[in-house]
This record gives sequence, structure tokens and C-alpha cells, in this order.
Amino acid sequence: MVTLKEIARECKVSPTTVSNILNGKPKVSEETKQRVLETVDKLGYRPNYIAQGLRNQKTKTIGIIAEDITQFSTPTIVEGIMSRCEERGYRTIAKNLRMYARWSDSWYNNESSYHSILDPTLKELESIRVDGIIYVAGHARMIHCFPEDFKMPAVMAYAFSDNPKVPSVVINDKESACEMISYLVSKGHRRIGVIGGKENNIHTQQRLLGYQKALYDNQILFNPAWVRYADWEKEGAYQEAKALLETDVTAIFCMADRMAGGVYCCLDEMGLRAGKDIAVAGFDDQDIAEYFVPGLTTMALPLREIGNASADLLLKQMEGMGEEVPDKIMIPCRFIERSSVWQI
Amino acid sequence: MVTLKEIARECKVSPTTVSNILNGKPKVSEETKQRVLETVDKLGYRPNYIAQGLRNQKTKTIGIIAEDITQFSTPTIVEGIMSRCEERGYRTIAKNLRMYARWSDSWYNNESSYHSILDPTLKELESIRVDGIIYVAGHARMIHCFPEDFKMPAVMAYAFSDNPKVPSVVINDKESACEMISYLVSKGHRRIGVIGGKENNIHTQQRLLGYQKALYDNQILFNPAWVRYADWEKEGAYQEAKALLETDVTAIFCMADRMAGGVYCCLDEMGLRAGKDIAVAGFDDQDIAEYFVPGLTTMALPLREIGNASADLLLKQMEGMGEEVPDKIMIPCRFIERSSVWQI
Repeated sequence: MVTLKEIARECKVSPTTVSNILNGKPKVSEETKQRVLETVDKLGYRPNYIAQGLRNQKTKTIGIIAEDITQFSTPTIVEGIMSRCEERGYRTIAKNLRMYARWSDSWYNNESSYHSILDPTLKELESIRVDGIIYVAGHARMIHCFPEDFKMPAVMAYAFSDNPKVPSVVINDKESACEMISYLVSKGHRRIGVIGGKENNIHTQQRLLGYQKALYDNQILFNPAWVRYADWEKEGAYQEAKALLETDVTAIFCMADRMAGGVYCCLDEMGLRAGKDIAVAGFDDQDIAEYFVPGLTTMALPLREIGNASADLLLKQMEGMGEEVPDKIMIPCRFIERSSVWQI
Repeated sequence: MVTLKEIARECKVSPTTVSNILNGKPKVSEETKQRVLETVDKLGYRPNYIAQGLRNQKTKTIGIIAEDITQFSTPTIVEGIMSRCEERGYRTIAKNLRMYARWSDSWYNNESSYHSILDPTLKELESIRVDGIIYVAGHARMIHCFPEDFKMPAVMAYAFSDNPKVPSVVINDKESACEMISYLVSKGHRRIGVIGGKENNIHTQQRLLGYQKALYDNQILFNPAWVRYADWEKEGAYQEAKALLETDVTAIFCMADRMAGGVYCCLDEMGLRAGKDIAVAGFDDQDIAEYFVPGLTTMALPLREIGNASADLLLKQMEGMGEEVPDKIMIPCRFIERSSVWQI
């Protein structure tokens, strides 16, 4: 790496002169300027953005910390952050904590393991002088991530921050589930089974509240036998689908498309068909939803929008003229109609 | 950001003393050491890794440049790179060119657009003094990425580098396709249709060579009517499947799982079933493969392995004792058997 000093030595001028030329301050002769610029070209000097940042106090760089980029939701949120930052003239740089790759699900409740990975990452980003940080969670929960005295502007994307100075951007699970159930009701379904994710999970609980609201709005009595829980995966949902199909439900709402996969398998084995013998609705709009036969009606997670909104909130903190920054933004999902729900 | 100087001033010692203490060189009294460490704790000084790197000439940081992290293959390759780097004591930092998000497919042949994004990214990574760079392509092709006089150790993952000093890590398309076709033959299929991706694409051409090899090995005559091309997507493959099902093929090999989705749709419409009336094989092992009913037999891309091997090659360049680094590594795919192929 060629330094400013070496350029200066080569051209027999002072480093300050080189710096002035590179920063467009023309206090030198045209001849010197040309000589320096040619040397810069020849030797390949690159301005040190970070050192520039140290001088200006701003690097115009945003750090993104992903809990795990192999979670299906993460790349699109990160893309949403990056596109917005770029529009606004900021560079981005990403760190990956590799939480799921490292420890599967076992770290949620292990603060010390978690911080053994997170804390050096925060320090590293501070050390390269990013102007702000967006943390992209792998799934929604309350996260103790940024210490109380954290000085840098920060935003929590796709989960809830326990630091009141760090705003959160999350999906509106309750409203979105309510919308899906209301759609099923509009298609004539009144006995609607549910396969939820893990019972103590925020997404599960909020979506169940949405289900309850839609039932209430339509004056449908809540039947506890219609509500089952699986673990967000196909296999568990397959078992729960078997149980639900022994009741009199005409529709099954799955809180994840992956779980709808288990329902489709179960229907196939029983010689039944989604969208014809039983209505199936999903949640997430993962790639798989489009590939089910028939295609799965579902709620698309607003991942890009979460990324955009997180970037907006961060830049508002950084550039804002003291306007108030909301402590939480909830973004609704998008309803995607395919062919897995029939009109009774 | 508190500096070393400020810590020194607060403790009434020299910056060198503070630095010595933080670097574990105990040339000072225990009392001074304790005072400094407490002050560091109180004021929150963070060592500047980059500045340390400037002094040591090494930051122990690897830069990863992804063409687009929303491509399905990219996050797992990146995870493979990061896990291996971490094992070997290196930090990683990721940049995302956002090529597909920006321009869809239109930039492959537009060198100047491409370099308008790539070149500043390379400079930025040089500027923060990464020790080496791994470039993660979104799909295989020959890429003019690193200039001929590029000084830093570098590796191209998932595509071919045109710079002979930059080794490439790619999948072995030919061998993997040959393996799948041989499996179909072993199940009694001799009239095997193919739906390829874009005709001029490296993956398509290599996999077709593998198909030809397997036919030849089994003394099956090549029938051009059995070979069709789509565009890697479901809709195109649906049309080609219709055409193929009018021939006498008993099996269809799709060069992408997404295209197998089109075949499943077509079969469903005709009242036929994969794995019973016609054998269907895929390629990629995307998430969707597991969710088809019946599950799709396919070749899994060795994405994590590509990441691991890329990191190994880079570290060998950086740390190696002059051993030769191969200019290309080809990694075979993994055969995944599900239920979409029947025994004749």
C-alpha cells in the first residue's frame, strides 16, 4: 500500500502538498499538480477512507450486524438497508455473527455466549469508525444487544431492542394474521384450524391474537381444539395436520410456509387436495410458497421494507435536526393470493 | 471515541506506557497498571484494529465481496468462508455489490457499469487494509474482476477468474450431471429428456456434456429432440415440459430445481405424478426441492465447501511457505435421493 508520504518523496514535495492537491486545494503550480497526479496514478495511491473519517469525524459508513446471513429473512433485509443507504450517499459494511451456524437455537437464553461474539464485533465496528449500526435479528424477540451507555446511533431490525435509545423495526404480526383469517372467513370458512410455531414465541403469540381478533370480529366462537403448535418446521406440522384433519375444520392457517409443507404432505397421503378439499394458508412467502402445487396463499414478510425503514430511522438519528425518532415501527405484511384457498 | 492519549493524560502517564500495558508488556508497576486498566474500563477506550494493522502491516481481516447476497447460493458460500476464516483466527468483513438488485441480468456484458461499482469497492477494502479478498459470484462465468497488477491475495468463488494469479473455486458441473444421468439409467430409464438453462451458459454447457458422457458410457444414442432449453425459471420449464411429454421420454432431468417446479405443474395439470408416471430429477437442492410432493431427487450444490475451499486457498497464498497454489479447484455436487424417480 503506497502512502501519501511515499508519493511526496517520489515527487520531492511535502505530504501536505500532495494532500492539498488530492483534496482539490490548488495552492501549487500546475506543473507540480500534474507531476503529483501522475505519480499517484503510477504508484496506485488510494486515499484512506478511514483516516479521512478520523479527520472529518465521519466515515459515511454504516455497519450492519447480521445474527446469521443464512436465515432466510436476512439477505433481503440487508439488501433493503444497503439500497437505502446507497441512495443517501452512505457506504455499508456487513458483519455476520453466525449465531445459528454456531449454536443452532441454543444461544437465545445464553447471554454470555451471545456477548462473547457480539461485543468484539461492536468494538470492531467502533474501531473502523462506522457512523451508525443496524442490527439484523434472525427472528423476533427482545434482545439485550446495545449496552445502555452505547454512544453510536443504532437501530434494531426484525426484533425488539431493550435499549430505549435504540428504535426497533418489526413486522405487524397481529394485524397480518387477522387479515389472513378475515380472508378465510370471506371465503366462507368458519371452522379454521391453526398450526402455530413455538408456543412461547412472540410471532406465535401475536399471530394468535390476530386470529382471535378476526374470530371475534366475525362472531365465531373460539375452539381450543383448532389451535395446535409445531416448531416452525415441516415434520412437526405434518403431525399436527393429521390431528386437525380429524376435527371438522375446513381451513388450516399455518404460521409459516414451511409448516404448510407438512400439511400438503399429509393431505397428499390422505388423497386430499389443498384448495379443493381443504383450504391452506401460509405465512412468510418464502420461495417454496410459489412452488407448492397448488400455489400457497400466504402473507409476504415485508423484509425489504424493514431494511428501508431501519436505514431511514438510523439516518434520521444521524442527520436529523432533533426531530423525534419513534421507538418502534411496525410494518404490515403483504397478502399474496394463490390457489390454496377455496370458496365454500 | 476515547483515544490512547486521553487515557494517558487522565492517568498522568505516557501514551507508550498505556500501550505497553494494553499489549501485556509489564514494564510498569502493578499500581500504575491497575490505574490505567480502570481508566480504560471507565472511559471505554477501544483499541483501533485498523491502526494496529497499519503498524503490524496485517489487520488479520479478510474482505468478502458478494455480487449479490440475495442470490440463493451466496449466503451459504459466505458462511463457508467466514467459518473457515474464524477457525484460522481471521476476522471477515463483507461488501455487497448489489448487482442483481441494481440491474437484474443486464450487467454481465457491460464492463463499464460493472467496474463503476466494483472498483470503488476494491479501493474501499484496500483502504481499510484487509489482508486478502474473496469474490463471491452470483453465477458461473469468466469474470474480469481483479486487474492484472492487483497486489493483494485474492480468490474467485463460484466463477472463473481471468487473472491467472487469482485462483477459482467452482462446482464440477460435468461430473455432477453425469452422476445424475447415470443414476436415472441405473433405475432403468434410457429415454431421458433434459431441460437446460440458458443455452450459452457455462453451467448449461458443462451439464450437457455430463449428460452426453453418461449416455455414451451406457451406449444410449443421443436424441436431439430430448434436449430443450429454458431460462432457469419455472414458467419456461413448464412450456418445455409440455413439449417433452409429447415425446417418449420416461424421465426429465432439470438443470435447476426451480425448473423442476414447472415440470411438476405440467404433470399435475395432465393428471400425472412425478416418481410414478414420469421420473423427475433436479439440480441445486434449493429449499424448494424438499417441499415438492413427492420430494425432488437432486444434486446439492457444495456451497459451504466452496466457501471453505476459497478461504483455504486465500490463506495458503497469505501464509503459505511458497507452496504452489492451484489455479482452479472443482468441487463435485452431492447426490440427494428423494422420491421423484421410479424404477422402471
